[in-house]
Amino acid sequence: MFRIIVWGANGMAGGELLRLLAGHPELKLEGAVSRSKAGQPVWHVHPHLRQDFPSETFISPEEAFGRDSHLVFLALPHGSSWPVIEQYLQQKVKVVDLSADVRLSNPEDYVKWYGSIHGAPHLLERSVYGLPEVHREEIRGADLVSGVGCNASCSILGLFPLAREGLLEDARLELRVGSSEGGSNPNTGSHHPYRSRTLRVYEPFRHRHLAEIVQELKTPEELFTMTMTAAGIVRGVQMLAQVRLARKMKESELWKIYRKYYQGEPFMNLCPARPSHLRLPDPRFVMGSNRVLTGFSLHDDGYRLIVVSAIDNLMKGASGSALQCANLMFGLEETSGLEMRPLYPA
Amino acid sequence: MFRIIVWGANGMAGGELLRLLAGHPELKLEGAVSRSKAGQPVWHVHPHLRQDFPSETFISPEEAFGRDSHLVFLALPHGSSWPVIEQYLQQKVKVVDLSADVRLSNPEDYVKWYGSIHGAPHLLERSVYGLPEVHREEIRGADLVSGVGCNASCSILGLFPLAREGLLEDARLELRVGSSEGGSNPNTGSHHPYRSRTLRVYEPFRHRHLAEIVQELKTPEELFTMTMTAAGIVRGVQMLAQVRLARKMKESELWKIYRKYYQGEPFMNLCPARPSHLRLPDPRFVMGSNRVLTGFSLHDDGYRLIVVSAIDNLMKGASGSALQCANLMFGLEETSGLEMRPLYPA
Amino acid sequence: MFRIIVWGANGMAGGELLRLLAGHPELKLEGAVSRSKAGQPVWHVHPHLRQDFPSETFISPEEAFGRDSHLVFLALPHGSSWPVIEQYLQQKVKVVDLSADVRLSNPEDYVKWYGSIHGAPHLLERSVYGLPEVHREEIRGADLVSGVGCNASCSILGLFPLAREGLLEDARLELRVGSSEGGSNPNTGSHHPYRSRTLRVYEPFRHRHLAEIVQELKTPEELFTMTMTAAGIVRGVQMLAQVRLARKMKESELWKIYRKYYQGEPFMNLCPARPSHLRLPDPRFVMGSNRVLTGFSLHDDGYRLIVVSAIDNLMKGASGSALQCANLMFGLEETSGLEMRPLYPA
Amino acid sequence: MFRIIVWGANGMAGGELLRLLAGHPELKLEGAVSRSKAGQPVWHVHPHLRQDFPSETFISPEEAFGRDSHLVFLALPHGSSWPVIEQYLQQKVKVVDLSADVRLSNPEDYVKWYGSIHGAPHLLERSVYGLPEVHREEIRGADLVSGVGCNASCSILGLFPLAREGLLEDARLELRVGSSEGGSNPNTGSHHPYRSRTLRVYEPFRHRHLAEIVQELKTPEELFTMTMTAAGIVRGVQMLAQVRLARKMKESELWKIYRKYYQGEPFMNLCPARPSHLRLPDPRFVMGSNRVLTGFSLHDDGYRLIVVSAIDNLMKGASGSALQCANLMFGLEETSGLEMRPLYPA
Repeated sequence: MFRIIVWGANGMAGGELLRLLAGHPELKLEGAVSRSKAGQPVWHVHPHLRQDFPSETFISPEEAFGRDSHLVFLALPHGSSWPVIEQYLQQKVKVVDLSADVRLSNPEDYVKWYGSIHGAPHLLERSVYGLPEVHREEIRGADLVSGVGCNASCSILGLFPLAREGLLEDARLELRVGSSEGGSNPNTGSHHPYRSRTLRVYEPFRHRHLAEIVQELKTPEELFTMTMTAAGIVRGVQMLAQVRLARKMKESELWKIYRKYYQGEPFMNLCPARPSHLRLPDPRFVMGSNRVLTGFSLHDDGYRLIVVSAIDNLMKGASGSALQCANLMFGLEETSGLEMRPLYPA
Repeated sequence: MFRIIVWGANGMAGGELLRLLAGHPELKLEGAVSRSKAGQPVWHVHPHLRQDFPSETFISPEEAFGRDSHLVFLALPHGSSWPVIEQYLQQKVKVVDLSADVRLSNPEDYVKWYGSIHGAPHLLERSVYGLPEVHREEIRGADLVSGVGCNASCSILGLFPLAREGLLEDARLELRVGSSEGGSNPNTGSHHPYRSRTLRVYEPFRHRHLAEIVQELKTPEELFTMTMTAAGIVRGVQMLAQVRLARKMKESELWKIYRKYYQGEPFMNLCPARPSHLRLPDPRFVMGSNRVLTGFSLHDDGYRLIVVSAIDNLMKGASGSALQCANLMFGLEETSGLEMRPLYPA
Repeated sequence: MFRIIVWGANGMAGGELLRLLAGHPELKLEGAVSRSKAGQPVWHVHPHLRQDFPSETFISPEEAFGRDSHLVFLALPHGSSWPVIEQYLQQKVKVVDLSADVRLSNPEDYVKWYGSIHGAPHLLERSVYGLPEVHREEIRGADLVSGVGCNASCSILGLFPLAREGLLEDARLELRVGSSEGGSNPNTGSHHPYRSRTLRVYEPFRHRHLAEIVQELKTPEELFTMTMTAAGIVRGVQMLAQVRLARKMKESELWKIYRKYYQGEPFMNLCPARPSHLRLPDPRFVMGSNRVLTGFSLHDDGYRLIVVSAIDNLMKGASGSALQCANLMFGLEETSGLEMRPLYPA
Repeated sequence: MFRIIVWGANGMAGGELLRLLAGHPELKLEGAVSRSKAGQPVWHVHPHLRQDFPSETFISPEEAFGRDSHLVFLALPHGSSWPVIEQYLQQKVKVVDLSADVRLSNPEDYVKWYGSIHGAPHLLERSVYGLPEVHREEIRGADLVSGVGCNASCSILGLFPLAREGLLEDARLELRVGSSEGGSNPNTGSHHPYRSRTLRVYEPFRHRHLAEIVQELKTPEELFTMTMTAAGIVRGVQMLAQVRLARKMKESELWKIYRKYYQGEPFMNLCPARPSHLRLPDPRFVMGSNRVLTGFSLHDDGYRLIVVSAIDNLMKGASGSALQCANLMFGLEETSGLEMRPLYPA
């Protein structure tokens, strides 16, 4: 069994990591770190896991450094991960960092999108972006892997076949997101009377995760806009992309392209053309699982294309992908501990 | 036109008062008071009212005292109303106080239920409990009227015919409440990922509003328990009372009793026996209105009775009742500005 | 008082018409028509209106024709309105038809979008499209006015300033709709376990309401796509349009254009630029009212524009607009019976 | 691997069985039976399981009888199971019947609660009620096991420690249920605009599942009432019991009793006294799992007790319990294939 420490274990991605570790056959929780909750039972914060962790208490960062581990997951606020990363790498402990601290490989991009100079830019080069569907081999050999932005991963996984084939001329991404994306700290926007049933368009053209999309798809930023809508759901991200193709395509050609890129991927699912109501996926169909659903529909003009993809933001969009990377880093079966099926209807 | 000032206008009950005043034929908003939001447009906080108050800004308490008014609504936190009340009464301005500060008439009850000595116990005697269905004539002549607890008003209005007839032997009240009951300040319990779809039983036997229920029904406290469940709705309170009757009753006798007490009441509605699915009311059927629905079902044994009543907590449970009292205090038609019909389905 | 008959009074738009008539100062319900519910109390189907219509029962079509009326609202299924229209017009009774039967003015368009030849094509010329914001003067003099498609009205009202100014080069409309749009008949898609919290993209490029949009905006169909998403809400339509402008624009120019077209309109509201979270409207902010909210955001490139508009589909998207037309047809104040403010939060 | 056939595989309990079988290490789906959907891909009805059953199609009952199996799950409508049971028992195939056909052991009870004479009363004696927590040893040796009513199992598992100890003097059960309890066929009550956010009290005193509760707790029916509320959730049953104890108790005595009965049970969880907001359980905390949460609170008078228990109706309330029984019948680990943790927040 590999020993695992989770930092930021009191948050939502942290709780989801604990859920996954509780069921993992080869990984074992060695410590759940939370400065603010240190000493409290884990199940006070994650009541659904009381049977799994009846006597586990949160530990402080100081205690965490005193414990031996093979890998740490860092589910910390943006900007606070990198000093912890540095310390663990020195100790030869593998790191998967779910914050945005090491997602971008170019320090200038970091400044541009996060508005400040990175505290440890050398980490950016060393880190691998944690989407196995794009960087599987690099992840296997890595000691530092970033997590993924949930909106970014949903978008990248829906569009990379098109991007790789040079087919994107213009792409208006429209993301619909659940409230768990905002984490566990309440604010006015997450207050139930206001958030319930909302359709709040809170970013018209640009979201930080676009930095990851552009980086991973290797396409110019100018090609994209990214509109964000907060929906009244808890879990789930759905990307609806209004794409203009760079050249006229037939539907059969698009099927061939998507199949080529998705083939053999354990979590990628291409939606069928029929029945039509299942062609463009609802995030409900992947809830609780690490799966990705992608579907598309081509306009008769052969240029206008809609691509929809759907994930569970806490799974494939955060903790699930992170665990998938950890599996690869340990040489384990990539799907280990991630085989759970979606819960539907729920 | 009577000039009205609303204190605590940035909160939920405050916002509902503004909505009501915007449509009232004889009352006019003279000032919307909020210390924390003073100077900001009212619609920043209540975006649905931008067309109604395009240029109104919140004013500070100091400004409020400088404005002339006939009546003030105080939608302030518990414990902070009474000094404001005193000042207005000295100025001969009528007051409807939606906080709990003057709901109880006995200072000892206040200590018992609110855990501290009241700052101005003489106000308790002077104040009238603001349920016109129980205190209509006193309200007409009053210069100080309290608001009502939303759970209390829902319960009192469902049970007073039974209480008046001495029929309550044992009553287990079970209240299901929406998230708007908690006001506009976010907290962990109101955080959308946690509150959404919840069925959180947060009080097993006792809730502060029981003080009002006992006072208004004039029944011993021992007779009641009061269980609270937070439901995943925004608006609405539903009381389900498991009653044991003091003597064996026939259904026809109960109909007669309820009809007697509800007769002529402009907002009280007794649910029909048929169709059975409409007999015990859903709060959705009164949403947005000042109406009360009450239904009951008698067990074959003639002793066990279920009473269900439903209100919109921001209307009949707070701002609607408050306005109803204000109408009475001004000698206006009691239903003035409160004729809106429920919004359903919504 | 004008006497009004509502056909299809058992449906959702029908119920909303009853709610509106119950509060209208100058119109009076003369009959609520439903073949399937004839003889049953109206409140069996619309339990929220029991206090308003305690003894009204649904009447059959035959009874309806025997009653005298000044105007009839027809909230019937598509394809079944036109014979009723013909009969009423012969009797010199005014008609507002909420079905799609007389929305299109060109019989060929009807064949194209509805897949069959119209039974009474002469009605199409005679009918006026029931959006007062576009056809106010014609409506005043009309005896036959169509209702509007809810998605169409939301889209038209958000885009007509741009269309009139020739600014639309490409517009990808994306509509998010509540479940009340589907009417009162249950089906698998409306089954709560499946519909709850859904984000179901059910039309990628085209929806019948596009016929109305193209007709009213007088723009070529090729310019548009129309993507439909069923959301887990009950009321509300939100249009998010990804527009490419025909020429480079400054934001100040767009403000001027929108203000010009919205000025003096009693229900049209242009969202402010600040605060940014209120710039692109949520349908929750108009729920229960006849209001329209429209906001826009221009990309730095001066070409890419997002327009969001929001309505209550049962009000401005159906029954509210229909009543607004009826007011005009009677020479009444256009806003009569439609002054209710949105219910929020709810 | 044991070969399993699921009848009624197109329904909700059927779909949940397929989800469980897809992840079971020792059981294998041999056929998914649905008369109405025969020939269609399973994922057309259960889109979340497309990756698990990419090419499985529903088979007809006739095909099903032609396939070899070790055990069949029957998730059929009440009244249609027993002929299928008879046929399988003759073929020496084990049966777990999720319908109500063999839940009651007394044929007279069946007549009383289901209103008709049972078609094969001999099956009632032969069948074991499928709650391992009550009948574990009998289930191990059985070839016919019934499923459980979801409301019944939630209630029984919350109350049997009290019942066994003779502590129930009066128990007012109040059940709050999600929409998935009603199965996959839409009706007016399940129509999203009506069901969404509802708090519909649809049975005041009695529900069929009370027959099971009385049978399993071995307590007189007169002691109970059972009130049903449909809530706006999809999954989950919560029982809130207002109990009057037969004798005055101390809290410590109740803890001892509950611990005694729950000890060693793999799915039973007793909620802690502290923190108080986790004492009375929310069904959200077990969603997607086979777990049961039970909590209680004793009034100061030592007599009045509230017990709350929560399950996922499709899991412990139906398919999860059924699989737990199958594990026992095969001599497998009881928890096999049922170790999944709850999904929260979701």
